[in-house]
Amino acid sequence: MTDPVLARLAADRAGILERLGELLRAPSVSTDPAYADGMAAARAILIRRITEAGFANVRLLEAGGHPAVYGEWTGAPGSPTVLVYGHYDVQPPDPAELWHSPPFEPTVRNGRLYARGASDDKGPSSIALETLAAFLAAEGRLPVNVKLLLEGEEEVGSATLGAILDGNRALLDADVVLSADGGRWRADLPTIAVGSRGIAALEFSVTTAVKDLHSGRYGGIVPNALHVAARLIASLHRPDGTPAVKGFLDGVVEPSDAERRSLAAIPFDDAGLFAGLRAEPAGESGYGTLERLWYRPTIDANGVWGGYTGAGGKTVIPNLAHAKLSMRLVPGQDPANAAAAVIRHLRTHCPAGVTLEIREGHHSAAYLVPDAHPLLLAAEAALEETTGTVPLRVRNGATLPLSDIVRGALGIDTVMFSFSTSDEDFHAPNEFIRLSAFDDGFAAWVALLRRLGKQTAADYAGFRR
Amino acid sequence: MTDPVLARLAADRAGILERLGELLRAPSVSTDPAYADGMAAARAILIRRITEAGFANVRLLEAGGHPAVYGEWTGAPGSPTVLVYGHYDVQPPDPAELWHSPPFEPTVRNGRLYARGASDDKGPSSIALETLAAFLAAEGRLPVNVKLLLEGEEEVGSATLGAILDGNRALLDADVVLSADGGRWRADLPTIAVGSRGIAALEFSVTTAVKDLHSGRYGGIVPNALHVAARLIASLHRPDGTPAVKGFLDGVVEPSDAERRSLAAIPFDDAGLFAGLRAEPAGESGYGTLERLWYRPTIDANGVWGGYTGAGGKTVIPNLAHAKLSMRLVPGQDPANAAAAVIRHLRTHCPAGVTLEIREGHHSAAYLVPDAHPLLLAAEAALEETTGTVPLRVRNGATLPLSDIVRGALGIDTVMFSFSTSDEDFHAPNEFIRLSAFDDGFAAWVALLRRLGKQTAADYAGFRR
Repeated sequence: MTDPVLARLAADRAGILERLGELLRAPSVSTDPAYADGMAAARAILIRRITEAGFANVRLLEAGGHPAVYGEWTGAPGSPTVLVYGHYDVQPPDPAELWHSPPFEPTVRNGRLYARGASDDKGPSSIALETLAAFLAAEGRLPVNVKLLLEGEEEVGSATLGAILDGNRALLDADVVLSADGGRWRADLPTIAVGSRGIAALEFSVTTAVKDLHSGRYGGIVPNALHVAARLIASLHRPDGTPAVKGFLDGVVEPSDAERRSLAAIPFDDAGLFAGLRAEPAGESGYGTLERLWYRPTIDANGVWGGYTGAGGKTVIPNLAHAKLSMRLVPGQDPANAAAAVIRHLRTHCPAGVTLEIREGHHSAAYLVPDAHPLLLAAEAALEETTGTVPLRVRNGATLPLSDIVRGALGIDTVMFSFSTSDEDFHAPNEFIRLSAFDDGFAAWVALLRRLGKQTAADYAGFRR
Repeated sequence: MTDPVLARLAADRAGILERLGELLRAPSVSTDPAYADGMAAARAILIRRITEAGFANVRLLEAGGHPAVYGEWTGAPGSPTVLVYGHYDVQPPDPAELWHSPPFEPTVRNGRLYARGASDDKGPSSIALETLAAFLAAEGRLPVNVKLLLEGEEEVGSATLGAILDGNRALLDADVVLSADGGRWRADLPTIAVGSRGIAALEFSVTTAVKDLHSGRYGGIVPNALHVAARLIASLHRPDGTPAVKGFLDGVVEPSDAERRSLAAIPFDDAGLFAGLRAEPAGESGYGTLERLWYRPTIDANGVWGGYTGAGGKTVIPNLAHAKLSMRLVPGQDPANAAAAVIRHLRTHCPAGVTLEIREGHHSAAYLVPDAHPLLLAAEAALEETTGTVPLRVRNGATLPLSDIVRGALGIDTVMFSFSTSDEDFHAPNEFIRLSAFDDGFAAWVALLRRLGKQTAADYAGFRR
């Protein structure tokens, strides 16, 4: 006998994709103020949809940044209260010329839906939202109490999410967060991510002279800002890929022998991964690929620019160079300390007489779900039920600032239950989501919600701080 | 008794500056095809002016690139024939936002005329052109035969100048080139530049993966194109500033003891220079400032870019990074060999699995005027006459591809006789020329032309190859 909610989701497939398409057409880039209209359009679409679906108390929650969209259904007294999380903001589309179809015109090709935000996170958020809507439509109720929170600042480090949570503690009080963000590791292997890396970001600028100088008139006697920036960036790592920043690795825990064995047991096609990326393996020597991704922190330059970058040549010695850096952090690292170590390193390595300006960005600590958390166990059981396989516990090399912020503000844990996949080019041109994610995702969300309906709020008491 | 030509130049001062202003308003940026209209406008202004002044055979000379403007006056049989050189193309105005007045709106402030090209080389070219025009207007003739050649590709390495000269050898046949480009070293010290550095340019791109990758999902396991580019740029020099490129210094001649003594005798305010630039001295250890500028070659990054450079952050591992490099070369270095050494160095230092694309730019060798060249001696005498001081022989750290190209194509030497000054921010925002350069320049050009009128073509025979 087909589940009535799944039946409804199947029957409404075209409508679901059409509504997602409308959301994808709203260019909701949170990092760039030029996209403010796209942000507002995405919010309006979501407010309309969750109101129609039957959520109550629909509103914007705001603390000086991009507002979050909120709605709730609280008709299951005694059942757990689950804060379902997603985000409607997306990364910038640059470099726009590398897209095969326009980033804000959703396009289906070969079973994949291409658009900025398709995979991160409008598609996965839509799976959660449409599942909840289908429950309400088919059964008039949800198996648990649900508070829906769709953030608008995930791509800018959830700048004001902490303040939004702090300012709405009673409204947002819940037993756990169930996140539609975070992504599946792979499409071919049922997994559940129990941890994520943290992040810290900064920008620096070096100024070597009062102005750009002619490379003939001054070449050989003055510093070149691009050379200084290149040396600073090169100095961050040793030739073997080890971070060369003193203090950066403070608190980092080596994987245990048991963790190493567990990693080794994961079927993982290293060669295929790198062949597909057309990249040579690189990184910290002495660690395997999954250790590097899940247990080791990184420092990456995300952008560097200076001097003349137009057509032809210009014989200047640039006096200004700029770099954006970000770090991925692991459990045990304090984000502020890690960022401070990099800043100290830059200041120490900057030559005398060169002005170094550093602007610190957002921080977020790494996160691990407690091993026996009831939502984690339910999520694993739901995936086993719908895939026929016990899911592997994995980690996520990326950052979900949410988990860290939520634990800090509301004292509860977060379980990630997304059906995007890590190869879907989010944060890059030609982002897509597999259409099959909607089948996998609806099945799993329905199964999980029905299992949560058998739990009680009391099951979560030991996991609230 | 005032020289009638100088009197005429003084009386026409407003007209001269007005005509120069019209030329400066034409945005004749040769490196960027977007400025083609500005190039055409500058040519039209010059053609009209030299025709009105009384030059004959006025025309464009062209060999597939930006045309040069040509005109001649050949009414002095037996006298030397001097090819007077200038250029009407200018550097790009970027970064445009740093200009205090728009780059193509000439503006006088504090005795300085600000505009892109004011100093390099529309101002100095205008001094030469207006002096010749004043001779023709006041006396109906010039003291020597003059062939006027105003190039349109000086700022792009005189790409087709060699072909223009090769294709017009009979037309351009002359005893020597007198260049209105090249610049005075200082405004406070009469000097004459007897040599210039050469140049070689290239661009490189590194590709580390098939696309930009998410710094969370892939951070720690794939190479970062910006890190590779930074290491490549950093590898070009040792920490003490010495070029680290094997073979790059081949052929470079150390300054002789006599040259070192002569350099030491030049009054030169090192501390004032660097204080004015707000830069620490930098460069090759073991050499003084003037040695570094005149006797030592350099490698400079002129532009570097890659990854996300917009507002806010973007957590990508960029798969592409780009750099523009240029080298300043000294006598003894073969430009092709020097460029090949840098290319070999980049290829050797590029990590395995990273695609390195290199595009070679133009080359031009360094240049030295023969010690006893009659035009050099006349120029020194003219400067002594008008300034009351024997000018110092200096070199120019910058490149005048002209000298090298002219020697190759026409077999004659070039003497630089420009009245721009090296601190006038050419190739940078807020380029200007001192209005006093017009007084100094007109006096010197009139004195020089009158001295050349006493020479004969035969005086130059020993200096033609």
